[in-house]
Amino acid sequence: MRDAYHEELDSLTDKLVEMTRLVRSAISRATTALLDSDLQLSESVISRDEAVNALFSDIETTIMELMARQQPVAVDLRMVITALRMGTDLERMGDLAVHVAKVARLRHPDSAIPPEMRSTIVEMGQIAENLVTKAGSCVTTRDVDSALELQQDDDAMDKLHRRLFRNILSKDWPHGVEPAIDITLIGRYYERYADHAVRVAEAVVYLVTGSRPG
Amino acid sequence: MRDAYHEELDSLTDKLVEMTRLVRSAISRATTALLDSDLQLSESVISRDEAVNALFSDIETTIMELMARQQPVAVDLRMVITALRMGTDLERMGDLAVHVAKVARLRHPDSAIPPEMRSTIVEMGQIAENLVTKAGSCVTTRDVDSALELQQDDDAMDKLHRRLFRNILSKDWPHGVEPAIDITLIGRYYERYADHAVRVAEAVVYLVTGSRPG
Repeated sequence: MRDAYHEELDSLTDKLVEMTRLVRSAISRATTALLDSDLQLSESVISRDEAVNALFSDIETTIMELMARQQPVAVDLRMVITALRMGTDLERMGDLAVHVAKVARLRHPDSAIPPEMRSTIVEMGQIAENLVTKAGSCVTTRDVDSALELQQDDDAMDKLHRRLFRNILSKDWPHGVEPAIDITLIGRYYERYADHAVRVAEAVVYLVTGSRPG
Repeated sequence: MRDAYHEELDSLTDKLVEMTRLVRSAISRATTALLDSDLQLSESVISRDEAVNALFSDIETTIMELMARQQPVAVDLRMVITALRMGTDLERMGDLAVHVAKVARLRHPDSAIPPEMRSTIVEMGQIAENLVTKAGSCVTTRDVDSALELQQDDDAMDKLHRRLFRNILSKDWPHGVEPAIDITLIGRYYERYADHAVRVAEAVVYLVTGSRPG
């Protein structure tokens, strides 16, 4: 049997995992909205972000109460500090999915993504989803080896990001300035989303080992 | 006389203020490097970021030790949690200054900024410096009214950011796609830098009042 204190610590983990689920859904919808120019789907990403923010606020409140009442030490203290850090990253990931959805909404009924670049965006969306799914799983399992793997998936994201720029900057780029700006920003949003997912996994490494991955 | 515990809490404030000073210098140098195409100045922003990261790491260590040994409560606990949040934002501001410096370095000896847009970048740099200076001052004084003022300065940054986009998207934009991409990213870096400065000030409001500004 666990006492109320440890149940509350466990509930933090559950809430963080729920946040990873929500922001995974957000980037998945945002990617689809972008590729299908689906206005309703864009709007759903934007309106659902409220739930991500509310969950983070709930986590912050739980943390402050836990620390004030229980004064956790050692690994429990690391858990609480780590939860705060993860929550901050996950909340930002929700914002970045909203940014992607807003570009889709702005260009509707047109698409912000020219046909020849769709496959790159599909891949970036897929990597973003894989990263956050893995991060969520690491939060539950606290598996350091899996957490360290996220760095490699993030390398794949960086490669795709560079490919986007090569496309835009090629001499025969036919779409002009506006789509170039959209794609520059969208690329940045996916890349930042991935970075934050990696940070969540790094926080798991810190939680378990007490030191930061190199 | 203050005891060792409160001296340590005070030292956190000093270190955060030092971080604001370092990241103010970073964005100031980065803006100048960008406008003057000064390679050495760009390099100095990039190499000096190490000091920002080291200071944040030092703050994190102090916080973990304080919490483990002293188990702060009430306003002291809020101070510690707030310091962690501020440090995270300030470290990111250092990264964003580095991003600006890297664009300057990439385009050297050319300038990433066309002549007619220089004045907008000068203003964005100036607002960024004002914001971080004010944020640093709020960290010291804990003045809630001043902290709430940062929101308005940030509105000015958002206006300039929109002006950048209007320039790039005007029909007679003569510079082609590459400068448009540079300016899109640079605009985003300044805007994010400003947002993080506002968050630092918001953390002061939370520290003093115990609730978030609306």
